[in-house]
Amino acid sequence: MATRAAAATLTAYTSSLLRRSASLRPQGLRVPHRVPPQRFVHHIASSTNEEAAAKAASATADTGGPTIFDKIIAKEIPSSIVYEDENVLAFRDINPQAPVHVLVIPKVRDGLTGLNKAEPKHTEILGQLLYAAKVVAEKEGVANGYRVVINNGAEGCQSVYHLHLHVLGGRQMKWPPG
Amino acid sequence: MATRAAAATLTAYTSSLLRRSASLRPQGLRVPHRVPPQRFVHHIASSTNEEAAAKAASATADTGGPTIFDKIIAKEIPSSIVYEDENVLAFRDINPQAPVHVLVIPKVRDGLTGLNKAEPKHTEILGQLLYAAKVVAEKEGVANGYRVVINNGAEGCQSVYHLHLHVLGGRQMKWPPG
Repeated sequence: MATRAAAATLTAYTSSLLRRSASLRPQGLRVPHRVPPQRFVHHIASSTNEEAAAKAASATADTGGPTIFDKIIAKEIPSSIVYEDENVLAFRDINPQAPVHVLVIPKVRDGLTGLNKAEPKHTEILGQLLYAAKVVAEKEGVANGYRVVINNGAEGCQSVYHLHLHVLGGRQMKWPPG
Repeated sequence: MATRAAAATLTAYTSSLLRRSASLRPQGLRVPHRVPPQRFVHHIASSTNEEAAAKAASATADTGGPTIFDKIIAKEIPSSIVYEDENVLAFRDINPQAPVHVLVIPKVRDGLTGLNKAEPKHTEILGQLLYAAKVVAEKEGVANGYRVVINNGAEGCQSVYHLHLHVLGGRQMKWPPG
């Protein structure tokens, strides 16, 4: 069931990408200049129906299986990388919710499918991730106004089970935060 | 001007609290069982108009002056504490945006008026804060569905200039995150 749910999600996502690719580009709809067209092929974290994607993804959440992020880390599929160091990779979200929307992830998951799996041994990488979020905001020119978000589980809207921080900025963020 | 703006914010906030205290309690309106009545006297992080509060607060953002959190840490004003250790304090937001809404702060600000002030030396406390957010979610019974949010600056909706993480859960969180 879990595999079937994951396959269904991927199929729906792929169809959605194809539709968007076909419909958006010829009409020349504005795409934020920071986000190149190939952003549409990367990952499923921010589908248009994030809640549904999160619910589908939660079926396979705790298997610890590979995610789309493994391929991004391995650079087997392209991403728009904003920042990278030994431990952390930051790249643009394919479905940005703000003019700046970057995901920050640990290069080695080490059991961190989500924040709820954090153990004391992870404190160092958690700090590195938050610090990297600050660096990303600076690099993107939104140092004085941005939001960092971590979704955990279906109710938190998590759709990829590899811990990731969202850095959003470039517009007035609202309250409540979703 | 900065002082005047801060004073105006505090006055408006106090009036709001008095109105709420007077109007809510006698009518016996439901208050979430996790949140005791004294929550209404703590801090201004989550006023009903968070964007306006954030804008007003940004006038004094970088002075590094004291905030309401200093009094909460010193226990000079009451708060509903959820978790505490040597470095971190977690207490309920006075204007919760979800059934569970807890703020996690460093006991020593050490220059961290906001995440944008983080330096490499802060990596350890940043990791401790994120780990504490996970512990808080577990203690509150929302380990499998919650969101962690950090607001930075006026556009991020930050209204208290002492770094703090919001932990929200107990309902389906939406997308985009504000």
